[in-house]
Amino acid sequence: MGNSPSKLAVVVLAAGQGTRMKSRRAKVLHELCGRPMLEHVLCAAESLDPERLVVVVGRDAEEVQERFSGRCEFVLQAEQKGTGHAVLQAEPKLADFDGDVLVLYADVPLLRSESLQAMRAEKQRDGADLLILTAEAPTIPGRILRDSVGRVERVVEMQDATKEELAIAERNTGVYLLDAQLLRSCLARLEASNAQGELYLTDVVQLAVGDGKKVSASLLDDADECLGINTREELADAVAVLRGRINRRWMEEGVTIVDPACTYIDMDVEIGRDTLIEPGCQITGATRIGEGCRIKAYTTIESSQLMDDVEIGPNAHLRPNVELGKGVKIGNFVEVKNSVIGAGTKAAHLTYIGDADVGAGVNFGCGSVVVNYDGISKNRTTIGDDVFIGCNVNLLSPIVVQDHSFLAAGSTLNREVPQHALAVARAKQRNVEGWMKRRQAQKEAAQRKKEEARKDGSDE
Amino acid sequence: MGNSPSKLAVVVLAAGQGTRMKSRRAKVLHELCGRPMLEHVLCAAESLDPERLVVVVGRDAEEVQERFSGRCEFVLQAEQKGTGHAVLQAEPKLADFDGDVLVLYADVPLLRSESLQAMRAEKQRDGADLLILTAEAPTIPGRILRDSVGRVERVVEMQDATKEELAIAERNTGVYLLDAQLLRSCLARLEASNAQGELYLTDVVQLAVGDGKKVSASLLDDADECLGINTREELADAVAVLRGRINRRWMEEGVTIVDPACTYIDMDVEIGRDTLIEPGCQITGATRIGEGCRIKAYTTIESSQLMDDVEIGPNAHLRPNVELGKGVKIGNFVEVKNSVIGAGTKAAHLTYIGDADVGAGVNFGCGSVVVNYDGISKNRTTIGDDVFIGCNVNLLSPIVVQDHSFLAAGSTLNREVPQHALAVARAKQRNVEGWMKRRQAQKEAAQRKKEEARKDGSDE
Amino acid sequence: MGNSPSKLAVVVLAAGQGTRMKSRRAKVLHELCGRPMLEHVLCAAESLDPERLVVVVGRDAEEVQERFSGRCEFVLQAEQKGTGHAVLQAEPKLADFDGDVLVLYADVPLLRSESLQAMRAEKQRDGADLLILTAEAPTIPGRILRDSVGRVERVVEMQDATKEELAIAERNTGVYLLDAQLLRSCLARLEASNAQGELYLTDVVQLAVGDGKKVSASLLDDADECLGINTREELADAVAVLRGRINRRWMEEGVTIVDPACTYIDMDVEIGRDTLIEPGCQITGATRIGEGCRIKAYTTIESSQLMDDVEIGPNAHLRPNVELGKGVKIGNFVEVKNSVIGAGTKAAHLTYIGDADVGAGVNFGCGSVVVNYDGISKNRTTIGDDVFIGCNVNLLSPIVVQDHSFLAAGSTLNREVPQHALAVARAKQRNVEGWMKRRQAQKEAAQRKKEEARKDGSDE
Repeated sequence: MGNSPSKLAVVVLAAGQGTRMKSRRAKVLHELCGRPMLEHVLCAAESLDPERLVVVVGRDAEEVQERFSGRCEFVLQAEQKGTGHAVLQAEPKLADFDGDVLVLYADVPLLRSESLQAMRAEKQRDGADLLILTAEAPTIPGRILRDSVGRVERVVEMQDATKEELAIAERNTGVYLLDAQLLRSCLARLEASNAQGELYLTDVVQLAVGDGKKVSASLLDDADECLGINTREELADAVAVLRGRINRRWMEEGVTIVDPACTYIDMDVEIGRDTLIEPGCQITGATRIGEGCRIKAYTTIESSQLMDDVEIGPNAHLRPNVELGKGVKIGNFVEVKNSVIGAGTKAAHLTYIGDADVGAGVNFGCGSVVVNYDGISKNRTTIGDDVFIGCNVNLLSPIVVQDHSFLAAGSTLNREVPQHALAVARAKQRNVEGWMKRRQAQKEAAQRKKEEARKDGSDE
Repeated sequence: MGNSPSKLAVVVLAAGQGTRMKSRRAKVLHELCGRPMLEHVLCAAESLDPERLVVVVGRDAEEVQERFSGRCEFVLQAEQKGTGHAVLQAEPKLADFDGDVLVLYADVPLLRSESLQAMRAEKQRDGADLLILTAEAPTIPGRILRDSVGRVERVVEMQDATKEELAIAERNTGVYLLDAQLLRSCLARLEASNAQGELYLTDVVQLAVGDGKKVSASLLDDADECLGINTREELADAVAVLRGRINRRWMEEGVTIVDPACTYIDMDVEIGRDTLIEPGCQITGATRIGEGCRIKAYTTIESSQLMDDVEIGPNAHLRPNVELGKGVKIGNFVEVKNSVIGAGTKAAHLTYIGDADVGAGVNFGCGSVVVNYDGISKNRTTIGDDVFIGCNVNLLSPIVVQDHSFLAAGSTLNREVPQHALAVARAKQRNVEGWMKRRQAQKEAAQRKKEEARKDGSDE
Repeated sequence: MGNSPSKLAVVVLAAGQGTRMKSRRAKVLHELCGRPMLEHVLCAAESLDPERLVVVVGRDAEEVQERFSGRCEFVLQAEQKGTGHAVLQAEPKLADFDGDVLVLYADVPLLRSESLQAMRAEKQRDGADLLILTAEAPTIPGRILRDSVGRVERVVEMQDATKEELAIAERNTGVYLLDAQLLRSCLARLEASNAQGELYLTDVVQLAVGDGKKVSASLLDDADECLGINTREELADAVAVLRGRINRRWMEEGVTIVDPACTYIDMDVEIGRDTLIEPGCQITGATRIGEGCRIKAYTTIESSQLMDDVEIGPNAHLRPNVELGKGVKIGNFVEVKNSVIGAGTKAAHLTYIGDADVGAGVNFGCGSVVVNYDGISKNRTTIGDDVFIGCNVNLLSPIVVQDHSFLAAGSTLNREVPQHALAVARAKQRNVEGWMKRRQAQKEAAQRKKEEARKDGSDE
C-alpha cells in the first residue's frame, strides 16, 4: 500500500437501449444543463486523470462514438446480456492493466468528481480490494450487508431479502472500484444463473468475498448523486437536482438569484459577484458574465461574454457569440447574434443586431435592424462610436457607419455613412385633410349596400 | 349479479355558491388547464357512457346552463339546503330509472375516469348496494368505520369521533355509487337534524346500513384525485396537480420537458415523440404538435397545429388557428395568428403574420408585418413559395405576393407582386455631411442659454 | 399593569458585515419583493408606532443611512463585538426612556407586524419584565428552558446542552421585548466571557432571571417568520416564503393566480377581484391593478396603474409610470413607459410607447413607435381619440396627432396631424419584373467563380 493512489482505468457502461425514453436518439445523448448525459460521466472520469477510459456502447454506437470521438476508447456490446457481460467486452482493453478499475454508468450522470476522488482515497486508506459506492436511496433494490466490523458481506437483491434485510437503508449503486486482477478473475467466473442468460456485475462482490478479499463500502453523503435515468421523467428529476447544485454554487459565489427554482444555468457558465438574475433566465453554453450585471426576467443568453455592469432584458435574447462591453444595456424584445458591442452602447427595445461590430456609446432606436441577410449570404456590418440609429432604421449589410453619425428614423440605408453625417432615406410627410371623413362616408355607404344585399338575400 | 355493469345515471352537484372564491363568475366555470371545473367532471362522467347525466345548478344557473347547454340535463336547487337536498332536486329526472346512480361534485374536478370505472367494477364484483369512494386525505373530516370483514359500518364526522376514530386515515369523499331504488328510499327518509335545516347525503350511508344493505368502500390510490375547490388557493393547488399529471403523461410518451414544474399544457393538447419543450411554455386548447419539434422557452401556443421538426421561440406566440408546415422556424418576438405557413418557411425575429396563407421556403425579415387590419376590416394575404420579405416591410392586405419574388427592406407594399419580381417602395439615401457637428454646436448653444437663464433665475 | 401597552422604543441591529453574501453592497440593502431587507423590519417596527426607532449600523453605515435618512435614528457600532455590544451603542439614545424596548434584527425581515403586536399584548397580559420571541426552528441553536409553570429559566446554547435539552424544539429567536430599565441594568453587567471578547444580548435573559424578574416566551405560529439571512441562498429562501405569503393574500382577495410558484408580486402592489394572472408575471413597485384584468404570461409591470378590464401580455412590459384606462389591450412584445393611455386603446404587437398622452379608442399598428428620444432630449407626444396608427409608423416627438386621424403604415411623421386627416410619408411601390431571375443568374455565376477559385487553390 503506497501513499499515492494506484493507476486508474475507467469503464463507462453506455450500451443500455433506453427503450423507456421512447426516443430516436441515443439515451446517453439526451442533455442535462447543456451537456449530454454521457459527457457528465466522462467529465467526472477525466477529472481523475485515468490511464484508460473505455466506453461500452450498444445499439446507438455510431451516434455516440461520433459525438465523443477522440475522447475515449469504445468497445461494442452487440447484445444486451447484462452489466457483467458489458464489462467483459471492455476486458481486452484492460488485459495488460494492473491498477484499479472504476466502473461507472452513462445513465448515472450526477456523480460528482469529489465523490469519485473520495472513493479512491478510501480504497487506499482501507486497503480494500473492492470498494462499493453505496447510498441511502430507497428506490435502489440491492441492500448492503455489512459484518460486525463494517466490511461488506453481501449484496442482497430485494426478492431474496428477509424482512430485516429489507429494512437496510444502505444500497448498492453499482459503482465499483477494484483491482484489475480481481476484476479479471471474477469476470471469468460470472455465470448466467437467470432466465434471460444475463451476466451481472453485482456477482463480483460475492466472488470477491468468497476469495477472502477485503470488500468495503463508501456511503454517498447525498443520495441524489446516484440517480439513474431510464425515463424522461427521471431525466427531468435529475436536471432539477443538477440545476439546484449549479444555482447554489453561484449563490455561494455572490450571485443573487431571485428564484433559483426558475433559473436555468448550464454547467459551463461563469458569473461574477453582485450580478443579479431575475426569474426565468436561461444561460447556456460557455457564457461568461461579469460583476454587477443585471439579467432581467425571461432572458436567454447563449454562449456569450458580458463585461461588468451590463443590463439585459426582460425578455431579451443573446444568440451565440456575442460580446457586450462594460455597461451595455440591452432592453426588452432585443436579439443580438454573433456581434461585438462596445461599452455603454444601448439597444433598449425591439431591435435585431446580427453579425455586427459596434462601437461604444451607440444608441439603437426601437425597431432598428442590422439586416445581415440579403437572401443569398450573411454579411458583416461595422458601426463606429457614438452613432445614433433612429427608430425602424434598416442597415443593409455589408455597410459601414462612421463615428458620431446620425441615422434618421425610418431610413433604409445601404451606403457608407461618413463621420458626423446625417443619413436619411425618407419620403416627406403629407397631410390629406378631411380624408377620414370621406373614408367614413364610403365605409357607411358600403355598410348600407351590404345590409341591403343581405336583406334582399333573406327575402328570397 | 350479471357480468356487465348496470345502467348508469350520473348526478353532478354544481349548485354551491363558491363565496370564498370572491368572484362574479360561477365557481364551477373557473378553469383548470383549459377546461372549466365542471367540464372536467362532465368529461369523466361522459367517459362512463351514462344513460342520464343530471347537473344540479344553483345561484349561477343561467351562466352554467349556457356554457354546457345540450351536454346534460339541468335541475335547479333554488335554496342551499345541503347535499341531500341537492340530490333530491335531481330525483324527478331519475323517477323511472332502475340502474346505478353515481353522485359527483363539480368542485372535485380531478377524479379520473379510470377511478370511476374501477368503482363500477368494484361495486359489481362486491355485489354492493352502495359503494363509497374513500381516500387517505387528512383534510376530509368524515372517517370511514369498517367492520371486521371490511364492510362499511358508518361515516363518523370529526366532531362526533372518539380518539381512536380520529386516527382513522380512510375518509369519505362524498362520491357514492348506489342503486337508484336505494337512493330514492333513503332520500325520502333524510331529516334535517341540524340548526341550518340542511339535508346531508352522507346520512344515506347510515340508512342503507340500517336497512341491512351491503355498503362497501373503494379507496383511491391517489388522494389528490378528490381535492375539493372552495378557494382560489385550492384552485391553484388543483391546477398544479393536474399539470403534473399531464406533463408526466407526455414524458411517458417520449416528450422531453426540461422543467415540468414550469410547463403549462392544456388537457386537450397532443405532442409527438422527441419533441423538446423548454421552460415556461404554455400550450393551450386543442393544439397538435408533431415529432422532433423544439418549443423554446416562454413560448405560448394557442389552438394550433405544428407539423414535425418545427422550431419555435424563445418568447414567441402563436395565437389560435395557425398551421405550421414541416421544419418551419419561428424565432423570438414573433406572433402568428390565423395563418397557414408552408414547409421550411422562416420568421426569425420581431415579425407579425396575421390572416395569411404563406407558401414554402419563404423568409420573413426582421420587423416585417402582414398588415391584416386597415382600421375597418381584417383582410387576408397570400404569399407564394420562396419569397424573400425584407426587414421592416409592410404588406397591406389584401395583397398577393407571387412565388420567387423579393420585397426590398423598408418597403410598404399595397399592390400585387408578380413572380420573380423585385418590389420596392423606398426613398433614396442622402448623406448630409457635417450635420452632427452643426447640431452639436446648436445643442451647446442651447445648453449655454439654458444655464444662463437658470443663473439669472437663481439670482433673483 | 395598565390597560394600554407601555411606550415603546425599537432598536434594530443592522451592523452585521454580511461577509457570506460576498457583496459590495450592504447586506441589509439586498431586496426581498421590492423592499430592502432593513425596510421590511422598519415597516414592521413603524406599524407599532414607537416613540423611538434606533438602527445600529456598522461597516456599511453610510450606504444604509443614506437610504433610510429621516426615517429613524442611527448609531454606529464601529467594531463587531456581539449583539450585546450593538445594543449598548444604542443605549445613549434610550437614556431617558422608561417604556419597553423591542430588539429586532435587520437580517430577520419576515417577522410580521401582527406577531410583534401579539408580543406587546402578551407581555402586558403576563406582566412579564422580559418577553422572548421563540420558534420551533430546528436551525436555531439556542434552546428555551421553561419551568413547570411555563416561565423561562434559561437559554441553553447547543454546545452546553444535555441530551434532553438538545431535544427541546422551542428556540430563542433573539427578539426581545423588555423594560428599558431592566435592559440598562443588564447591559451594564454583560461580560465578554469568550475568546473573541464579544458581548451577547442573550446573557440578558440569565441576568433578568437572576434578578428575579418575570421572563416569558411567546411562540411564533409560523417559524418561517424568524428566518435569518446570512447568504444569498437564505435570501432566496426568504424571498420564496414572502412571495408565498403575498400570493396567498391576493388569492384570498379574489385574484386568480394560475401558478403561484412562478408569480412575482411586490409587497406594495394592489390587485382587484377577478383579475387573472398567468404564469411568470412580475408586478413591482406600487402598481395598482383593477378588477377583471388579465395579465398574460411573462409580463412585467413596474409601478403603474391599470383600470378595470385591462388585458396585457403575453411577454409585455410596462415600465414605471404608466396609466392604462379601462379595457385597454396591450399585446405581445409591447413596451409602454411613462404614458397615459385612454380607455379601449389597443397596442396589440411589437410597439413602443414612451412619454405619450394617448386618447381613447386609439389603435397602434404592429411595429409603430413613439420616438421619444432624438439623441439629445426626451420629448412628449400627444395623440387624440380614435386615431389609427399604421404599422411601422414612427412618431417623432414632440408631435401632436389630432382626433380621428389616420397615419399610413410605414410613415415617419414629424409634423402635427390635424383632425380627420390622413398623414402619409411614403415612397410609391415599383415592381421590377424578372429581377430575381437576373439575380439568380448572377448568384450562380458568382458561385461558379468561387468554386473554380477553390479548385484552382486546391490544385496548387
